[in-house]
Amino acid sequence: MAGERGRRPGNPQTREPILAAAIASFVSRGYPGTTIRGVAREAAVDPALVMHFFGSKDGLFDAAIKKSLPVALLVEAMEGDEEHLAERLVTRYLELWEDPSHGPALAAVLHAAAATPAAADLLKELMRKDLLTPLAGRLSRDHPEVRGLFAASQMIGVAMMRYILKVEPLASMPAPLVAATVTPVIQRYLTGELSLEEITGAATALL
Amino acid sequence: MAGERGRRPGNPQTREPILAAAIASFVSRGYPGTTIRGVAREAAVDPALVMHFFGSKDGLFDAAIKKSLPVALLVEAMEGDEEHLAERLVTRYLELWEDPSHGPALAAVLHAAAATPAAADLLKELMRKDLLTPLAGRLSRDHPEVRGLFAASQMIGVAMMRYILKVEPLASMPAPLVAATVTPVIQRYLTGELSLEEITGAATALL
Repeated sequence: MAGERGRRPGNPQTREPILAAAIASFVSRGYPGTTIRGVAREAAVDPALVMHFFGSKDGLFDAAIKKSLPVALLVEAMEGDEEHLAERLVTRYLELWEDPSHGPALAAVLHAAAATPAAADLLKELMRKDLLTPLAGRLSRDHPEVRGLFAASQMIGVAMMRYILKVEPLASMPAPLVAATVTPVIQRYLTGELSLEEITGAATALL
Repeated sequence: MAGERGRRPGNPQTREPILAAAIASFVSRGYPGTTIRGVAREAAVDPALVMHFFGSKDGLFDAAIKKSLPVALLVEAMEGDEEHLAERLVTRYLELWEDPSHGPALAAVLHAAAATPAAADLLKELMRKDLLTPLAGRLSRDHPEVRGLFAASQMIGVAMMRYILKVEPLASMPAPLVAATVTPVIQRYLTGELSLEEITGAATALL
């Protein structure tokens, strides 16, 4: 989805089937169960070609996350007025989870990040660079990064309860009702009055 | 703890060292890497004794969750006026995560639940029966179970970002500031005006 750049001497059309095989493997076998060799076998290419394109298992996971999340569609939902930012983001986020072509990969990313510190580090880096930074750039109030993080915590929490743990009745509730319930909370994190003056004092060094 | 000879199946003092070994294994090896045989070896007992007390690996995990969560301390924090329910719950919840004798086990439970459907089912059942039901019983407004679930989603989301993914600055922010930021949100889920009238129509059958 995202335009690739850089020197890729191999046929770039070979890269996509490898990445698809990698995502399928992360989804079905998890991060620990996925190997360069196994992905190469699934994609019917030489393991050296997988290394050529992705460098390592971490590189493969990083590309799989980038392809799966999918960052571009979430960043697109950030465009527009700040007043309805949460509504657009939450709606898009739930749509992606509900979409059979994105949901399982998103679940695999969360699984991997919860189960494997290396995967958590990659997800964290990607979240910060490609999602939280653009989100913070859209916020006009104090502590935009912290606001974005609390918003993200609510979105990840809903995904955990609804799509990973599948706790009823949250799991079967229509997505628009879930969105209607969490949107005001997330909008409040993004633009509302928070007790972040204290944070200014206590945690400025961390920001 | 003391040097028990502990081969007698009935001796309840033998149960605790087995459970401690199981928790240590779930923490360090995860759910898939934990076996009845390995736990028995760590606890220096016969595998049959582990089976006697816990019945199966799932039974062992269930007991480990019950011991680790720890449910009683959270239920205790529910006692008191409804107006400060979120404040008491969030404070206690973060205290438990910060506590070296509880935090790693809590993380192991979340890890296991995110990584393994069987573990997710056990956590879900325990959450419903031992945490969400007592919480709902304390709520005076409409749809107490749904309110409890949304509150839980925010609490789990904060734990994911702060203790599992360790995203900064949320990971290093003082716990009282985190509590001050999420408490109003959680109190709103528990007792505030939500757009749950729609849920009454659309999802009554699910409740």
